[in-house]
Amino acid sequence: MSTFTPTERTQVRRLPKRGAYDRETVFKILDEAFVCHVGFVVDGQPYVIPTNYGRAGEILYLHGSAASRMLRTLSEGIPVCVTVTLVDGLVLARSAFHHSANYRSVVILGTARLVTEPAEKMEALRLFTEHIMKGRWEQIRWPNEQEIKGTTVLALPIEEVSAKVRTGGPIDDEADYELPIWAGVLPLPVTPAAPVPDARLKAGIAAPENVARYSRADGSKQ
Amino acid sequence: MSTFTPTERTQVRRLPKRGAYDRETVFKILDEAFVCHVGFVVDGQPYVIPTNYGRAGEILYLHGSAASRMLRTLSEGIPVCVTVTLVDGLVLARSAFHHSANYRSVVILGTARLVTEPAEKMEALRLFTEHIMKGRWEQIRWPNEQEIKGTTVLALPIEEVSAKVRTGGPIDDEADYELPIWAGVLPLPVTPAAPVPDARLKAGIAAPENVARYSRADGSKQ
Repeated sequence: MSTFTPTERTQVRRLPKRGAYDRETVFKILDEAFVCHVGFVVDGQPYVIPTNYGRAGEILYLHGSAASRMLRTLSEGIPVCVTVTLVDGLVLARSAFHHSANYRSVVILGTARLVTEPAEKMEALRLFTEHIMKGRWEQIRWPNEQEIKGTTVLALPIEEVSAKVRTGGPIDDEADYELPIWAGVLPLPVTPAAPVPDARLKAGIAAPENVARYSRADGSKQ
Repeated sequence: MSTFTPTERTQVRRLPKRGAYDRETVFKILDEAFVCHVGFVVDGQPYVIPTNYGRAGEILYLHGSAASRMLRTLSEGIPVCVTVTLVDGLVLARSAFHHSANYRSVVILGTARLVTEPAEKMEALRLFTEHIMKGRWEQIRWPNEQEIKGTTVLALPIEEVSAKVRTGGPIDDEADYELPIWAGVLPLPVTPAAPVPDARLKAGIAAPENVARYSRADGSKQ
């Protein structure tokens, strides 16, 4: 699959073999995760705010209340960094120094634009819902005019982007392999528990399949 | 328990009832999570990088290779934002608009200082390990002089800080409660899978209790 071109700013320098720039790796991480951390600068101070997102091809959509300071600030077209991280497990080495985590992360740099065209905005709202849970959009009440108006949607091109991935067991210093210390990986999967019905749920409505058999590993795009 | 004083920059403005400033809430989130997202600015561009951390009272410790650009940059004493986010579940409402997530997050603003005093640096290294897994420090080979030298440790005061917490079921518009739509919460706990022993593990070494019975919800401080 085709790859993004690393820039001076996205080239992974520390442990470069962990860097990845191909679309397949980048999109799989973006689709499996559903929370991103958005970085922006106000008066020289960086802020990092967690939020949900959606993706359509090479566009990442962010959204929030029209009253949100973050959305208002970003819609001015200032530089932004969106980082998505999946933690897959703890890497427990024989030495403190080689302890690590298995993770997959994506860093996107760029400038977001305000989405004003009604059809694109509605499609983005669909994507936010479908990104959280595939199939949910067809099961729920869609946004009305007032709700659409009250939501700010931003589009960030997925262009200046890199992924960083660590997998596998610990790498210890050769001499340490002789030590009588347990080493390995503790996988930390996100495992859905049983759905908790709303207290005001009408009688006789069972949780649909996409809720009852939810799996993030499938990703939101299938 | 005592509370931090919100500043103009940490006061939660959007949905202020989700804001929390008490030490108990802030510390519990910091201790249950183990990945933070560090925001800093280089040439006007924000960067957001995931990393591990440790905590001692009102100090958050960050670390990394002495060759790390992020650590080098932060040790110059520039403004930083460290955000920690735990996602507890998906909030599935009857309307697209009221879909949400249950989460607990902490945002710390400040300036980090380089830790140079050997005893504090060693203690921070212990905290990183213990934060990932309580009891691990006593089970492993400790850092030697060369490893200590190769690690940069930064200390960030937990002072200008706020937490934001959403819990509970969906809040729908009154009219929507009549719709025949399943609504509720899908909890997404992080559930450790069985430990995977390293391929070169010496025969006869079983995973210790803190690995085999690992739970993040206990937090790293007990």
